[in-house]
Amino acid sequence: MTFQQKLCDTIASRQSNLCVGLDPDPARLPELFHRYDDPLGVFLKLVIESVGDLVCAFKPNFAFFEAQGEQGWRLLREVVRLVPSGVLTIADAKRGDIGNTARAYARAIYDDLGFDSVTLNPLMGYDSLEPFLAYTERGVFVLVLTSNPGAADFQLLETARGPLYLQILQKVLEWNQQDNLGAVVGATHPAMLKGIRELAPDLPLLLPGIGSQGGDLEATVAGAAPTAHAPFLVNVSRAVLYPQGTGDFQQLVRAQAEHYRDSINQAGKQHDV
Amino acid sequence: MTFQQKLCDTIASRQSNLCVGLDPDPARLPELFHRYDDPLGVFLKLVIESVGDLVCAFKPNFAFFEAQGEQGWRLLREVVRLVPSGVLTIADAKRGDIGNTARAYARAIYDDLGFDSVTLNPLMGYDSLEPFLAYTERGVFVLVLTSNPGAADFQLLETARGPLYLQILQKVLEWNQQDNLGAVVGATHPAMLKGIRELAPDLPLLLPGIGSQGGDLEATVAGAAPTAHAPFLVNVSRAVLYPQGTGDFQQLVRAQAEHYRDSINQAGKQHDV
Repeated sequence: MTFQQKLCDTIASRQSNLCVGLDPDPARLPELFHRYDDPLGVFLKLVIESVGDLVCAFKPNFAFFEAQGEQGWRLLREVVRLVPSGVLTIADAKRGDIGNTARAYARAIYDDLGFDSVTLNPLMGYDSLEPFLAYTERGVFVLVLTSNPGAADFQLLETARGPLYLQILQKVLEWNQQDNLGAVVGATHPAMLKGIRELAPDLPLLLPGIGSQGGDLEATVAGAAPTAHAPFLVNVSRAVLYPQGTGDFQQLVRAQAEHYRDSINQAGKQHDV
Repeated sequence: MTFQQKLCDTIASRQSNLCVGLDPDPARLPELFHRYDDPLGVFLKLVIESVGDLVCAFKPNFAFFEAQGEQGWRLLREVVRLVPSGVLTIADAKRGDIGNTARAYARAIYDDLGFDSVTLNPLMGYDSLEPFLAYTERGVFVLVLTSNPGAADFQLLETARGPLYLQILQKVLEWNQQDNLGAVVGATHPAMLKGIRELAPDLPLLLPGIGSQGGDLEATVAGAAPTAHAPFLVNVSRAVLYPQGTGDFQQLVRAQAEHYRDSINQAGKQHDV
């Protein structure tokens, strides 16, 4: 089965386009976790338990794990183990290096840690992606247009054939011979997202930038899914992991995830009408 | 002291522009290491011991460490500890992410592991570099033009203001307010390297692609150092770590490093005349 098919099936069977990003930040951990020997481990376990049935994917953000050293790498492995069967894992690692090195990164992320998919940075071109694409049943989400202000520095630069991000998109479409490529498009650019979807009607889109980063959920869903079958994932990290308000931690986290899952589904339905 | 100053002093005092890249690959490890419990650890220790006085920097390539999981992260920490005082460490991690995440990567690489400098991917723009630049005495080498074939896919694309790699270079120069930025330029592009050095006469250049990747050493040194004071590092990884021939491992590795250090110095002198 292709990664594209696996992703579509997962979204359909779980009735959810929500991806929860896992950014375990010791500075933002609620008080209640401070008493444990392994506060981040307990935190991640409770988050995954609380929202596992509401999401189609979890996306651990490697930076926050690496900031914990060896222990963080152990947590990363533990997260992959804890994710319920049928839910996809996305290694948010944004790697990109020459072929020889990319092969070692692919071994780390796919063989050793066992992720289903990965985010990659395309600046170094095809041979930096190829070792990952060789795993035909796993998925690669390539950075096309990111959600941060710095996206304007290079991604929006005009080239002889349109802005750089559309050049990257064209290459992604060209390289997607095994239906295992997708694109990362920031939810902070709804108009450009619409243009991307027009050029790439079937491409899986991973959309960060909702929640703390302030992206517009309705405009994002409208842009990403002009038809009911266009595959997309909306990622929310901090707004789910570190909810406002008081009460039971797992209930608060679950309520946030439920809110986002339902809002995405609602936005999709409104759009169908 | 600025990173630029520290780098220039290191090169001058050690009379070496050689950086040895550490890519510990179990598949290429000589037979003699197979009998140890920690073959990669022993290998790295012997390499660092053998060439420590011949280099100005060591550049561990994170992919090869990450492929070893938790154990690899421990090795990375051990490498930083083993590098002799006065020799610089470059974390070849090619990270790049939104500000919030880049801060966590900077904590991992600078605070936790203790590296002097890092390679970063600029595709996500200024806010992806800024958390690293805030450490004013550490150095950031930004990917400008890489040594691999895929460099042609995006880095050479013509924009309204010249090829993308020169746009990246312009931004690096603009952002280099604290003299803690440098550029990665593949030694496989000597003519473009010459053009880069003309635009950036004082910028530290990290030059991979010599050795296994086939870059021309003389043309590279001539391009990188048209004057005696332009700071540059020539990186060699596999050609030093996995030498051909039989004999004592440490002597073979040392002979390779000596050859490259001397060839770089020689090329620099010829050019001065």
